[in-house]
Amino acid sequence: MRIDVLTLFPGLFPGPLGDSVIGRAVRNGIVEINAVNVRDWAVDKRGTVDDKPYGGGPGMLMMVDPLVGAIRAKKRRDSLVVLTSPRGELFNQEIANELAEEKHLIIVCGHYEGIDQRVIDSEVDREISIGDYVLSNGVLPAMVICDTVARLLPGALGDDESSRHESHMDGLLEYPQYTRSVTREGDGVPEVLLSGDHSKIEKFRRKEMERLTRCRRPDLWEKYLIEGRMKGQRR
Amino acid sequence: MRIDVLTLFPGLFPGPLGDSVIGRAVRNGIVEINAVNVRDWAVDKRGTVDDKPYGGGPGMLMMVDPLVGAIRAKKRRDSLVVLTSPRGELFNQEIANELAEEKHLIIVCGHYEGIDQRVIDSEVDREISIGDYVLSNGVLPAMVICDTVARLLPGALGDDESSRHESHMDGLLEYPQYTRSVTREGDGVPEVLLSGDHSKIEKFRRKEMERLTRCRRPDLWEKYLIEGRMKGQRR
Repeated sequence: MRIDVLTLFPGLFPGPLGDSVIGRAVRNGIVEINAVNVRDWAVDKRGTVDDKPYGGGPGMLMMVDPLVGAIRAKKRRDSLVVLTSPRGELFNQEIANELAEEKHLIIVCGHYEGIDQRVIDSEVDREISIGDYVLSNGVLPAMVICDTVARLLPGALGDDESSRHESHMDGLLEYPQYTRSVTREGDGVPEVLLSGDHSKIEKFRRKEMERLTRCRRPDLWEKYLIEGRMKGQRR
Repeated sequence: MRIDVLTLFPGLFPGPLGDSVIGRAVRNGIVEINAVNVRDWAVDKRGTVDDKPYGGGPGMLMMVDPLVGAIRAKKRRDSLVVLTSPRGELFNQEIANELAEEKHLIIVCGHYEGIDQRVIDSEVDREISIGDYVLSNGVLPAMVICDTVARLLPGALGDDESSRHESHMDGLLEYPQYTRSVTREGDGVPEVLLSGDHSKIEKFRRKEMERLTRCRRPDLWEKYLIEGRMKGQRR
């Protein structure tokens, strides 16, 4: 997969994406992540990329021409153009799975106070928000999308990481975990984990996952119950 | 405010936090962001910080002693310890507002496949997830929290940014915006914005905000309606 990130801060990439799993996937040729400087498509020599909004209001918007120029320069027939935006659909693992099926992602980082709607209408396929909070710009959201999607590409994770990863996928929160190392914090490890009885351990973990999900994320718990019922009916 | 970020990748900081609004807030002394290397509290000379889980399972967990050592070294009487974790409460602007009231945040980046539950039980005040997707580690979530919270500190935003920011706060998605610049993309700017009639423009924008929220984020729309009714009853 190839990912072009269109941004006013290309120097911030790869940044956190250079380390750990994603850095290794890049080195192994599984994914290519390029930062593209939108300012290279500015319409004047001063490199202007923003302008005041029509109809008044505070702040500056990203103009049409630099962004459209940059997008079209990178666009291929099989590209999907994603805009990071607080107005977008809420990013989740399902959307990540969909994006991971693409050959080429163009991720446009929102900047300043927004971007001209005409860019969105003519060039953008999906608007995505990583969460209901206000960030300074679209750099961190673009990195979050890159990280989440690149992990899903075949070969990106080692076998061990991969099987672990699967366990996150069934709609419940993770069970509590304990390391084997002796510690000055004393014991506090639930007895069942010391028992060596694997079916008991499985049962304990499942119960904890359900308990945590029910009490911390009633929204996920409800979804889990509904999906369980639907599977039951299909059988 | 002071933020200590406990991580295995201190070299990635400030990274995206060094630019734009947050970089300026740091330079102006409004917020101090320090990356702390957890490995400095490793229990052996090889710098070991992870171990296998009790009860079996793939992957490696972060051990108790290095993390507890690092947290206690930084902890003051007025510190709040936050762990980035997929099991946490879902981060939003409301939680950001609460965190922005603190004097000192210690943000522990989750790493590897999880951390020993005993660290959470004895040291962590809040577990926070930035969204329902799987990331490689807690560096990006920590940066997202830093960015969102630091923006809220008094003096972090300029007046213009600040007033714009307010408009994000009433629970609806942003209206579409258009720049004044002429463009090869043709017109396409809604006529009302060219009219100069500010009450009409206000009405148009409000309508667009409601339409977008209703159709893209029914969850936010429902919350907005309920809160509106509650306010109405209080009057």
